[in-house]
Amino acid sequence: MPDELDVIESIVRRAGRVPAGYAAIGDDVAVVPRRRGNLVLKVDMLVEHTDVPPGMTYRQAARKSVAMCVSDFAAKGVKPDSFMVSIGLRKGVTEEQVAELASGFRDAEREWKVHMVGGDTNESEELVIDCTMVGFAERFVARSGASPGDALVVSGRFGYPPAGLKVLMKSAKAAARFRKMATTSVLRPSPSLRVGMALAPYLTSGMDSSDGLARSVHTLARAGGVGFELVSLPTGEGVEEFARANGLDPEALVLVGGEEYLVVGTVKGRDVDAARRAVRKEGGELLEIGKATPKAGRVELSVGGSRRRVKDEGWTHLR
Amino acid sequence: MPDELDVIESIVRRAGRVPAGYAAIGDDVAVVPRRRGNLVLKVDMLVEHTDVPPGMTYRQAARKSVAMCVSDFAAKGVKPDSFMVSIGLRKGVTEEQVAELASGFRDAEREWKVHMVGGDTNESEELVIDCTMVGFAERFVARSGASPGDALVVSGRFGYPPAGLKVLMKSAKAAARFRKMATTSVLRPSPSLRVGMALAPYLTSGMDSSDGLARSVHTLARAGGVGFELVSLPTGEGVEEFARANGLDPEALVLVGGEEYLVVGTVKGRDVDAARRAVRKEGGELLEIGKATPKAGRVELSVGGSRRRVKDEGWTHLR
Repeated sequence: MPDELDVIESIVRRAGRVPAGYAAIGDDVAVVPRRRGNLVLKVDMLVEHTDVPPGMTYRQAARKSVAMCVSDFAAKGVKPDSFMVSIGLRKGVTEEQVAELASGFRDAEREWKVHMVGGDTNESEELVIDCTMVGFAERFVARSGASPGDALVVSGRFGYPPAGLKVLMKSAKAAARFRKMATTSVLRPSPSLRVGMALAPYLTSGMDSSDGLARSVHTLARAGGVGFELVSLPTGEGVEEFARANGLDPEALVLVGGEEYLVVGTVKGRDVDAARRAVRKEGGELLEIGKATPKAGRVELSVGGSRRRVKDEGWTHLR
Repeated sequence: MPDELDVIESIVRRAGRVPAGYAAIGDDVAVVPRRRGNLVLKVDMLVEHTDVPPGMTYRQAARKSVAMCVSDFAAKGVKPDSFMVSIGLRKGVTEEQVAELASGFRDAEREWKVHMVGGDTNESEELVIDCTMVGFAERFVARSGASPGDALVVSGRFGYPPAGLKVLMKSAKAAARFRKMATTSVLRPSPSLRVGMALAPYLTSGMDSSDGLARSVHTLARAGGVGFELVSLPTGEGVEEFARANGLDPEALVLVGGEEYLVVGTVKGRDVDAARRAVRKEGGELLEIGKATPKAGRVELSVGGSRRRVKDEGWTHLR
């Protein structure tokens, strides 16, 4: 059974080498060489009982803990440089599980071209991975900044992760192709840094959608002192059929599911086409789903001739 | 019962204002203005069942989570700038407990003149506080760097925290004055940044003593390719009497207790007096307890005419 020192050795051995100027992992502090711009920081904690669904491996959990930070950096238009991981492991964790975690961190290093520069290992009652990500930037896309008239855009389609979660929890069924797409969105969430960096110059405000579309839109509304009128929902392919077959509300899957790790933001009307092209160039799809209004804090959905309020629902811990 | 948003509100309301150039807490990323030097990072996780002894309040636990990082910065001679806290809270946490955590973070801000710039709130099966600390420096005191002949120094006396822990766990008794000093060292660990910064220019290697004196000395030996001969132990006042009265080994209390949050390091012989004066000026006490030898990895204790090996014992998670 590995102890703290074995865990560190196992993870460091599998990690990528850091370039010159960085301190190699193993001293008491990590060092990242100076860069232009201000320091941008994000910390996000993955906790087993809320963030690791049935069927997710330790390797996937480790990668996801980094993905959660990457998603915020992508939405803010900041290229991440490095990350650290503070890990809490159950007593009795196996060597194989530790090796899996190490592989997951390595996956993240490769996928998003970031360096693991340090961390901490602890004993806890469930798996906890707290990822701290750092980058440097002159500016970032703030939550505030939307003006009435701005287009509301999202960088992809919604509803797969909540559907995938239901499939993994065996509370819903799905045909093979949708099942695969939906469960993959849960087990291997893939925030796109390239899409985020391409979109950022056009955004007047923005954030990631990890707490769900409705929550993100409400947050941008509050921060910007605007309202939003949604005229279409960015429903994922197959989500409506899945909802119908399982007696679920497709709108709820799209609006309050969460964990999509896409960008939700606002763009000046004149910039929508250019933003769409920039995102397409990076393999993404930008959808215009509504516009900002002067009705501060009010989020409405107008589809099929009816109009209704969208509640500020989404994932809230401890609720 | 407070939810995630209440927790954030409670903590942010009590936090100090960040100066101009920093992003106020509340967006998805934290921003620290550019500084000279490379970025220095440290992450340390406090987990309730291993790091929060009986009798420690939530306020003290919050302060301690920051102290754990401050201790490393002090030993490395790097002034911390800011910190973030990623928190896991039990379902059912009370408003009072959250307010206590907030007060503890505020205590840390004031005590070490650091800014809380962000964080994350989660639900977990026990209290978890992961503190990420950042600073900027051209150089830091590394673990490696000791040469044979260098003096081995410590920035204070050892044995109070293990004694205090035993008192708090009711497995030992102590007279009022010692009891107070020992339990305070556990409940309000006080790494001294001022002592660390004053000592750092003289250190050829160094680290903090949070995993215990023996472990720290062994770590400096391995990293420097040297050995150490200890000729005296930095035994805290009253520790021997406490040990005798409770049938404990005083050497073990000093060598493998841990959580002292002092600096253990090496200094060139010619610099010892100047280092001592610099530390005294900041209210600390520098003790020379031995010297580095060419016997790589070997740590020996020579007191009272006998010589014996000191084992590489100390706190290791998951062991």
